[in-house]
Amino acid sequence: MGENEQRISLIPLGGLGEIGKNMLVIRYGNSILVIDCGLIFPEDEMFGVDVVIPDITYLLENRHMIKGIIVTHGHEDHIGALPYVLREINVPVYGTKLTLALIQAKLKEYGLSGVRLHQVKPRDTLKLGPFRVEFLRVSHSIADSVGLAVHTPVGTIVHSGDFKIDHTPIDGEVFDFYKFAQLGEQGVLVLLSDSTNVERPGFTMSERTVGNALDEVIRQAKGRVIVTSFASNIHRVQQVISIAHKYNRKVAIAGRSMVNVVNIAAELGYLNIPPGTLVELDELIHLPKNRAVIISTGSQGEPMSALFRIAMGEHRQVEIVPGDTVIISALPIPGNEKLVARTVDHLFKQGADVYHEAVAGIHVSGHASQEELKLMISLVKPRFFVPVHGEYRMLIKHARLAQELGIPEGNIFVAENGQVLEFTRHKGQVAGRVPAGRVLVDGLGVGDVGNIVLRDRKQLAQDGILIVVLTLNKDNGTILAGPDIVSRGFVYVREAEELLEEAKGRVRQVLEKCEERKITDWSTIKANIRDILGKFLYEKTRRRPMILPIIMEV
Amino acid sequence: MGENEQRISLIPLGGLGEIGKNMLVIRYGNSILVIDCGLIFPEDEMFGVDVVIPDITYLLENRHMIKGIIVTHGHEDHIGALPYVLREINVPVYGTKLTLALIQAKLKEYGLSGVRLHQVKPRDTLKLGPFRVEFLRVSHSIADSVGLAVHTPVGTIVHSGDFKIDHTPIDGEVFDFYKFAQLGEQGVLVLLSDSTNVERPGFTMSERTVGNALDEVIRQAKGRVIVTSFASNIHRVQQVISIAHKYNRKVAIAGRSMVNVVNIAAELGYLNIPPGTLVELDELIHLPKNRAVIISTGSQGEPMSALFRIAMGEHRQVEIVPGDTVIISALPIPGNEKLVARTVDHLFKQGADVYHEAVAGIHVSGHASQEELKLMISLVKPRFFVPVHGEYRMLIKHARLAQELGIPEGNIFVAENGQVLEFTRHKGQVAGRVPAGRVLVDGLGVGDVGNIVLRDRKQLAQDGILIVVLTLNKDNGTILAGPDIVSRGFVYVREAEELLEEAKGRVRQVLEKCEERKITDWSTIKANIRDILGKFLYEKTRRRPMILPIIMEV
Repeated sequence: MGENEQRISLIPLGGLGEIGKNMLVIRYGNSILVIDCGLIFPEDEMFGVDVVIPDITYLLENRHMIKGIIVTHGHEDHIGALPYVLREINVPVYGTKLTLALIQAKLKEYGLSGVRLHQVKPRDTLKLGPFRVEFLRVSHSIADSVGLAVHTPVGTIVHSGDFKIDHTPIDGEVFDFYKFAQLGEQGVLVLLSDSTNVERPGFTMSERTVGNALDEVIRQAKGRVIVTSFASNIHRVQQVISIAHKYNRKVAIAGRSMVNVVNIAAELGYLNIPPGTLVELDELIHLPKNRAVIISTGSQGEPMSALFRIAMGEHRQVEIVPGDTVIISALPIPGNEKLVARTVDHLFKQGADVYHEAVAGIHVSGHASQEELKLMISLVKPRFFVPVHGEYRMLIKHARLAQELGIPEGNIFVAENGQVLEFTRHKGQVAGRVPAGRVLVDGLGVGDVGNIVLRDRKQLAQDGILIVVLTLNKDNGTILAGPDIVSRGFVYVREAEELLEEAKGRVRQVLEKCEERKITDWSTIKANIRDILGKFLYEKTRRRPMILPIIMEV
Repeated sequence: MGENEQRISLIPLGGLGEIGKNMLVIRYGNSILVIDCGLIFPEDEMFGVDVVIPDITYLLENRHMIKGIIVTHGHEDHIGALPYVLREINVPVYGTKLTLALIQAKLKEYGLSGVRLHQVKPRDTLKLGPFRVEFLRVSHSIADSVGLAVHTPVGTIVHSGDFKIDHTPIDGEVFDFYKFAQLGEQGVLVLLSDSTNVERPGFTMSERTVGNALDEVIRQAKGRVIVTSFASNIHRVQQVISIAHKYNRKVAIAGRSMVNVVNIAAELGYLNIPPGTLVELDELIHLPKNRAVIISTGSQGEPMSALFRIAMGEHRQVEIVPGDTVIISALPIPGNEKLVARTVDHLFKQGADVYHEAVAGIHVSGHASQEELKLMISLVKPRFFVPVHGEYRMLIKHARLAQELGIPEGNIFVAENGQVLEFTRHKGQVAGRVPAGRVLVDGLGVGDVGNIVLRDRKQLAQDGILIVVLTLNKDNGTILAGPDIVSRGFVYVREAEELLEEAKGRVRQVLEKCEERKITDWSTIKANIRDILGKFLYEKTRRRPMILPIIMEV
């Protein structure tokens, strides 16, 4: 690469090799633009962790360079880390109306004020330092989603955002074919594109087709209808409201996040609710069953959600009766399959008719399938291609797709979080690495739960803990009290008294031996207790509880 | 129901409302027959539990009545509880050759000897007390699977076993249409039928179609091919071996359970291995890549499996190189999706080409889809129908299917584990309930991990534990040592010294207050410590670790 050539760096800090915590840094000289700021939900083995956010060491080290954070849409994997990041770095945030409203609600929840939120709309242009940012309308499962064109002195970077191509969107706002094509015609240096659905052949169906399927189910329903979906899927909510109105049913909302989003969306004009259609849940339950529709949270079987509580017969206001119809208008996110199945099972048990994933047409994805991904590449005609927003296999498959469309293999970068991709007008290369990774959030603690804490939680979860306490005489090391044994999560103590007595005996033997050998070093005594007791318990139970000897001195 | 009418009871002890731990009791007078004896794998929240088996209280109470256990096939959800049950009740076990060989291997592993295993083959008839049992050939994803006809003085009970209908099975052993039809013609009182795939329309494809798909992939593969499937899927293994041989490749087996099953199947003649085709893994790795096929465990992404270790670069002998092809010839069992996705991702990262669920044809199910389920009902023409082997929603859907075929709603029983279904020649009814449920196995402990232990493990997993120890003077209650605080899985201690110091201060305050108020009752002191400390820690961290005060006296 020529010494004097201008160069631009793309640095993904999240969203590569994973679906979640999206964050991309664009750096030119000493100016940085950040695109998206999302979270990811914890893996199964991250016991007790609430959410996971990107490591922003790089941003903290270069905070003075940051011109702003651009947010493409209001999903958690794009906005969820904002409260944590904005607490550390006070920079302006740019996004469309609904996106900002959702961010605002989130910041309020976290008690953050004074954040500069700047509203933009599709086709707006923003000048931020050396960057000129254009906002491009795309279709997605949340209203007001955009892709981006970032014009830089080196060339134009196009970021697809999360997208699909919906020719018949509910809000009439069609994907901006012209703008993407115009950018392609003028010349695009790099395209970064959504890889979520690269494994699906064909086209993703229009959101409108879901309306047809829901219409059919609601029309035929004899009793009450409960529909669940992601709260942020305004268009889905709109369709349910419209269909309910058509069949002379009233609608009530159940579940906190659904209530919040519907309020925000209605206030901003993203929902068209016929007067009198929306009623309180308390009111709805007194209507005849065939006049009622409930839109609720719980499409992922979340144990705290309205639908889950309804399914378990634990909801304060809503009880399932035979004749009720439940529509789960969503697919389980990988990892939630069993939770959703359990919800469905309980609903069936209560006598409901349940329409879920097995039933065609009641849900469509918000992400582009293979033919749409091809269309994106063909419209934008980039010199370099970087698949983003996907697990590793998806990035690879998206790269292959791009190759099939004629982009040379050497111009495609399947990157990892933290890698610095450097581009001139003609060349691209991996040029080093910056810190990147997972920061675990547990309660108020951000980053204080690490490998050691997780390893301990895992062992505790597996076989529990056994605590051995004893008090020694400071002067001569003789035992004044104990050894006592307390266990939690290991065995049902009342039925294991004999085992625990025997364990105490083993500890006494260890202590006697230590005394014989004049061992007075606490850490050696503790290690011996752990060792002997561990072997004894494993032999007796084939379990390996954490063994924690505590010695006090008097 | 007439007082003098003869009656027969069907009592499911497992397999209803779940896929797993199948066990059915058939009782006539004082004679009992048990069908299947399976396990189920633990739910996510059953921390540390290895397997779950049926509660056999009913069998223990009526042990002298049991004529034997009939096993339909060799899958874990049908044989997995045998070592535990046979340890308690020594009764003969009846099954086909391969099924018994797998049981034998399992009993050996558990160190059980002296079990009476009696081999039968399809169309055999067995007289056990008042029961006459016929074995009926069915197709399934393990060889030597049977359904059952149990002739009783009240009528004939047909049990489908796990089945599909494969017109072109690999071993040429076709589903016994004649026998099922003959039973139907002669009159069947009750049909119990497999509900696993009731949500799938159409027919399940033949196992042979997988061979075509595998042939295509292996033919085109440039390098080494690794195929993973369930170890027990002998027909799948057979097809891979045959295809490997066709393309002049040698085959090696990786993974303990795969080695075991292949050895057993080969020995008994269930696998036809061309001489010289099967080699040791050590030998295979020295062959040219395009001469090698590995059949391995790990189709569920199990962290200890051969494929997982290969994917993570941790296998002693096999390392993935670009050009390798991996075929995951199985679907993830619900709950394993993320583990499988992680395996696939790592394989892609190592440079392998991976064929998995997204690719059509490389796997078919072993269970009947809707059209086959209808065929079963039409062949058997039962008076009463009991859907089994399925989660609740599946049982409901299977019941509806039967209704569509003309079985009256009142003759269909969607039952729960433990319910007693009583039938005369003309009538059926739910007639009470016997103990049934889950017995958790953790290490050597069978049933000693219950709700309390699990609740503790859950809390420990979530936020860890904080132990407060102090030594008091027996005579006057003054503190001689402590309070000391030890935590595990709560916070990273080195960075939380201040927090833990402050926590200690709170404990001291509690103790002082107790002293002031002359509280000397340990349980009150402990409750106060838990209370104050819990609030303090929640306020500071929004976490709720288990708080365990331990007081010693000197």
